[in-house]
Amino acid sequence: MSGNTFGKLFSVTTFGESHGPAIGCVIDGCPPGMTLSEADIQPELDRRKPGTSRHVTQRQEADRVEILSGVYQGVTTGTPIALLIRNEDQRSKDYGNIAESFRPGHADYTYWHKYGVRDSRGGGRSSARLTAPVVGAGAVARKWLREKYGTELMGYMSALGDIAVPFEGWEHVHANPFFAATGDAALLQRMEEAMDQLRRDGDSIGARIDVVARGVPVGLGQPIYDKLDADIAYAMMGINAVKGVEIGAGFASVAQRGSEHGDELTLEGFVGNHAGGVLGGISTGQDITVSLAIKPTSSIRVPRRSIDKAGNPATVETFGRHDPCVGIRATPIAEAMLALVLIDHALMNRAQCGDVQVATPKLK
Amino acid sequence: MSGNTFGKLFSVTTFGESHGPAIGCVIDGCPPGMTLSEADIQPELDRRKPGTSRHVTQRQEADRVEILSGVYQGVTTGTPIALLIRNEDQRSKDYGNIAESFRPGHADYTYWHKYGVRDSRGGGRSSARLTAPVVGAGAVARKWLREKYGTELMGYMSALGDIAVPFEGWEHVHANPFFAATGDAALLQRMEEAMDQLRRDGDSIGARIDVVARGVPVGLGQPIYDKLDADIAYAMMGINAVKGVEIGAGFASVAQRGSEHGDELTLEGFVGNHAGGVLGGISTGQDITVSLAIKPTSSIRVPRRSIDKAGNPATVETFGRHDPCVGIRATPIAEAMLALVLIDHALMNRAQCGDVQVATPKLK
Amino acid sequence: MSGNTFGKLFSVTTFGESHGPAIGCVIDGCPPGMTLSEADIQPELDRRKPGTSRHVTQRQEADRVEILSGVYQGVTTGTPIALLIRNEDQRSKDYGNIAESFRPGHADYTYWHKYGVRDSRGGGRSSARLTAPVVGAGAVARKWLREKYGTELMGYMSALGDIAVPFEGWEHVHANPFFAATGDAALLQRMEEAMDQLRRDGDSIGARIDVVARGVPVGLGQPIYDKLDADIAYAMMGINAVKGVEIGAGFASVAQRGSEHGDELTLEGFVGNHAGGVLGGISTGQDITVSLAIKPTSSIRVPRRSIDKAGNPATVETFGRHDPCVGIRATPIAEAMLALVLIDHALMNRAQCGDVQVATPKLK
Amino acid sequence: MSGNTFGKLFSVTTFGESHGPAIGCVIDGCPPGMTLSEADIQPELDRRKPGTSRHVTQRQEADRVEILSGVYQGVTTGTPIALLIRNEDQRSKDYGNIAESFRPGHADYTYWHKYGVRDSRGGGRSSARLTAPVVGAGAVARKWLREKYGTELMGYMSALGDIAVPFEGWEHVHANPFFAATGDAALLQRMEEAMDQLRRDGDSIGARIDVVARGVPVGLGQPIYDKLDADIAYAMMGINAVKGVEIGAGFASVAQRGSEHGDELTLEGFVGNHAGGVLGGISTGQDITVSLAIKPTSSIRVPRRSIDKAGNPATVETFGRHDPCVGIRATPIAEAMLALVLIDHALMNRAQCGDVQVATPKLK
Repeated sequence: MSGNTFGKLFSVTTFGESHGPAIGCVIDGCPPGMTLSEADIQPELDRRKPGTSRHVTQRQEADRVEILSGVYQGVTTGTPIALLIRNEDQRSKDYGNIAESFRPGHADYTYWHKYGVRDSRGGGRSSARLTAPVVGAGAVARKWLREKYGTELMGYMSALGDIAVPFEGWEHVHANPFFAATGDAALLQRMEEAMDQLRRDGDSIGARIDVVARGVPVGLGQPIYDKLDADIAYAMMGINAVKGVEIGAGFASVAQRGSEHGDELTLEGFVGNHAGGVLGGISTGQDITVSLAIKPTSSIRVPRRSIDKAGNPATVETFGRHDPCVGIRATPIAEAMLALVLIDHALMNRAQCGDVQVATPKLK
Repeated sequence: MSGNTFGKLFSVTTFGESHGPAIGCVIDGCPPGMTLSEADIQPELDRRKPGTSRHVTQRQEADRVEILSGVYQGVTTGTPIALLIRNEDQRSKDYGNIAESFRPGHADYTYWHKYGVRDSRGGGRSSARLTAPVVGAGAVARKWLREKYGTELMGYMSALGDIAVPFEGWEHVHANPFFAATGDAALLQRMEEAMDQLRRDGDSIGARIDVVARGVPVGLGQPIYDKLDADIAYAMMGINAVKGVEIGAGFASVAQRGSEHGDELTLEGFVGNHAGGVLGGISTGQDITVSLAIKPTSSIRVPRRSIDKAGNPATVETFGRHDPCVGIRATPIAEAMLALVLIDHALMNRAQCGDVQVATPKLK
Repeated sequence: MSGNTFGKLFSVTTFGESHGPAIGCVIDGCPPGMTLSEADIQPELDRRKPGTSRHVTQRQEADRVEILSGVYQGVTTGTPIALLIRNEDQRSKDYGNIAESFRPGHADYTYWHKYGVRDSRGGGRSSARLTAPVVGAGAVARKWLREKYGTELMGYMSALGDIAVPFEGWEHVHANPFFAATGDAALLQRMEEAMDQLRRDGDSIGARIDVVARGVPVGLGQPIYDKLDADIAYAMMGINAVKGVEIGAGFASVAQRGSEHGDELTLEGFVGNHAGGVLGGISTGQDITVSLAIKPTSSIRVPRRSIDKAGNPATVETFGRHDPCVGIRATPIAEAMLALVLIDHALMNRAQCGDVQVATPKLK
Repeated sequence: MSGNTFGKLFSVTTFGESHGPAIGCVIDGCPPGMTLSEADIQPELDRRKPGTSRHVTQRQEADRVEILSGVYQGVTTGTPIALLIRNEDQRSKDYGNIAESFRPGHADYTYWHKYGVRDSRGGGRSSARLTAPVVGAGAVARKWLREKYGTELMGYMSALGDIAVPFEGWEHVHANPFFAATGDAALLQRMEEAMDQLRRDGDSIGARIDVVARGVPVGLGQPIYDKLDADIAYAMMGINAVKGVEIGAGFASVAQRGSEHGDELTLEGFVGNHAGGVLGGISTGQDITVSLAIKPTSSIRVPRRSIDKAGNPATVETFGRHDPCVGIRATPIAEAMLALVLIDHALMNRAQCGDVQVATPKLK
């Protein structure tokens, strides 16, 4: 319960630090009888991994996943599935200069004060590298959701800094290095240039990510506390650098009237989806729509004022291999987290209401 | 684990429906040795209760809290503290017309499909009335946090629909019916008129609430998953009608550069608080700042299209006693939820790191 | 997580002290759609309640249960079911003499040192009175298990002190005040006389209880840690005064050979049940058989050496209304605890493997 | 929550199967700042590992543990500690003959019916091999308990089948292959001969193990459900092959009178320890004493009746490398489990009552 386990019935416990020997996770609660191999997981890790374009960190990691348990003759057995990813490209010396002082905007300061000890190599446990096991676990969850309910998870970048990126179609998302759902060449060019300028400046920028779950059964979620949207907010805010989460209309709801916001129902289904697929904490069967605000990376070359562990003033410049926009690689992570929330609630729902009821199709 | 318990070490399990005999909660994990009586809890309930102005529901509930256990000779014993609030003003007949059809934007539809049975009286378990026990539990948490660390929780409404309400000072918050932190009479008048017009229209409106925790120890929160901000997001998104949550700079982070967003440190402490008091999921000791988007109430008089349980088209108009802006009463609720998150993490932190370390003052 | 919640999916959180205003519990996770009223619960409470014969405490408590939530129109709604039992016959003055010193064998000493404060009236939270809400929750669990799987829970006293009580048939259990499964009038007479003598002596005695669950589906339980038998041991050892737990052959297994202990299988099913219905932590579908050792009541009239809170020697004699053999009323409690374990594992199993698989009949 | 995590605050999640690539665990919640290396863990694993005498399984496993995370520069960082043990000597072909039928007394039958799929190599997840990670995690817990409170865990075999083994002194325990606390050469010779005869017979035998924790702080445990003794019972019954658990006087309590059982207190401390160090579910500060009944190994050469997966009669003889008395290697496992219970409750207690109070010495 020290926070490193996600989910109650499909529980993912992660371990590892950026520059330790390995990272990984243990998935407890995956239903038995599903075919599973590394080939189901590796593609998701590849979408997230570093070094895929000049706009992300140049650290070279194959992120090769090994399944250590829980699968026998290619089928899940119902016992824990351990995933192991060895760290390969650890240039710990890059981080010598930040071991003694605290990067502004970074976890350095809080880890030091909480634990009195800190693995400063590459950010240690606070590194975004720790999202890799989550993406691996998410791949397992996605496979089960797809096979059981036909659920699909999809995401895209909707803003890069102050550049809004309109949604034009899912087919574009993997045709550019930003997970942008646009085929507008001029806009993509503008994004490339903005990123190139940032690298020259040694600075970083925020981003906005949108995630959608399609084909979600009706009835996932609990009335109080463990609402589906509450658990989604927890999952998303738990991703490194996230500072805001919206469901459906989100902050736009503030200025809406009830007669505008509440999605009417007809025999064909809901008219609109301001709810983002969740009413009273429980899924409606519509698309679940979530938006995230991702802050700019804290590790930048621009010199900044700080203090050191001894309490003296210090100037911090970070020279390691960092993403100038951590939001770029956030899309597959957010999809994975959403998958983890959904499978956990799907399993809870069949505990409560039985398998048959969950599987029964409801009104559109 | 069916979702009705909040918190791992200071656990609050609620029960009850809007029109059942009673609502309440059991608090498990309150440290022993704190003085406590109903007089510590009732004032917080009174801040939230219905019927305090013409702008909120006119249901008449004394919301009188009774402590059933866990306190002996005025002192907490370390055993569960049960709080009981009897329901008094139950006009269930008001809800006859909504028992058979689903209010747009409301939990009616999802409850029906999840459970196959639904207590339709006043929204049953989905009623905002169920926030009363939470506020009661929050009062216990606040007392402990105040006495132990000097922590204070404060909130205000920062927008009523499209009317932005600037923060001018905490002293204003309880001098108007909106929890507005302004003494601007014209602005308050405009808010009153907007609400009066809404009631005449039989419609409702959203709101934005800001909450602040001051005097939080450094080191609360976990690196992964159970980050302090992740748990805050979970807590806030779990409040009825919340559709968005921000920590610190929130969605404004998207357009910020790292050199702007990351709060520098000096010997005098942090310069700025874009982080909202949380770095890497762990509290910095600065103010924790949270913003919520609250959607407009779904129960409105305006006729709306829907369907009924038999699958026929229906028109729904809701005539019960509803808040035209459920955001008005949300401020004490959000404060209570934040208190519950903080006490849970405070207890976890002393499990991990020991009491002495937590109590030790840190930088700034 | 401070220990007052039992079960993960069918979670029972209890509250209350022996002489506070009320005791009760909140059941979270009861599946929706089951008919339920106080009439389903009260009979189980009546089996456990004090004052039913001269051999148990003479405290007069109606133990009248009130359902506060979670049931609508006589049907469970899937939301928390709160049970409330008001304390009526509180003679707190009886306990004045034990407020300052520690009864040998009692929780007085440990509570005082753990919490630094102690509700000494009737043992406060450590009173066996707190098993009443458990029996209430157990009644709900039993009803669901019976209706869903045909599971039945039954128990009997197999030893009263050094008097062994053979099992002769379930029909005898409710025909005597001891839950003895015998119709042997001479033996029952001997038990009565032993109890009468104990009361004259102001002393107490231990007992052995056997509990059986019949009609348990195959497949309940987990391979490691949350084995069905591990959770049964936890449940049983958690009952007041229990000092030992056996499953199946129990301690007799020590002297058995593998060729004797391992229950062979034939087409007609298992030959024998040394396993007690659990293999590898998972139910076999056979009867689950459990035995408990219950220590003699600690509150006795016989003067005993102790110390007081100030650290001075003291002599303790307890004059309240106590059970001279707390084991007598333990049978319905043990049945209830076993029911709570089984429903929790049944719900977990259908989360993992689906409802259909659980419902499918297996061998024998 | 599918059962593979032990403990709430010091949580140990295990993974792996007997003949998969690796076994291991993730420890979440180890306090920061403790020195730790593989050298602290390996000796405990060596005490448990196979092949150390002719009386245990001849499988050759180095059981070399690797720490993958949570330790930096030889000190725990407060983040998860992953332990990895590669499986080396996997002769899966030994198990071909049991893949299709169910060994009497073994988990084969229940796994198959629960999951519909089963890793039959060496018992898969049900293998006693899975106690290795537990012993590794226990070594970490023991180190912390020893350094913080001076707590020591010790165990011994008190019966091998029908051969009672008296306790004569801790110094004997590691001077023989049985963890017997005796120096009686004739008795040890008799044990050796009994084991040799068993091997010749192709049969197995049960054992009784006693475990003691010395130097436990007063106040560990909760009043209801999560009693210290309830959690000990859960931990012990969860060890492979355990069928019974006793605390203190255990089943002997049945025939005791209250005036005999209740341990009197004097200024020098408790007189006797029938309680086994636990009163009302909370530690007294005395030795915690626990006894276990371990059934005979189910995998034996003696032919036995069974059925196969197709539902036909079968005869089962098991030829793999099995312990003829699984109880022999159970002593270090039981010590480890007790350590895990104690550290979990120690951390919980300091969450509830603060570090200072826990550290303060109490009476005796």
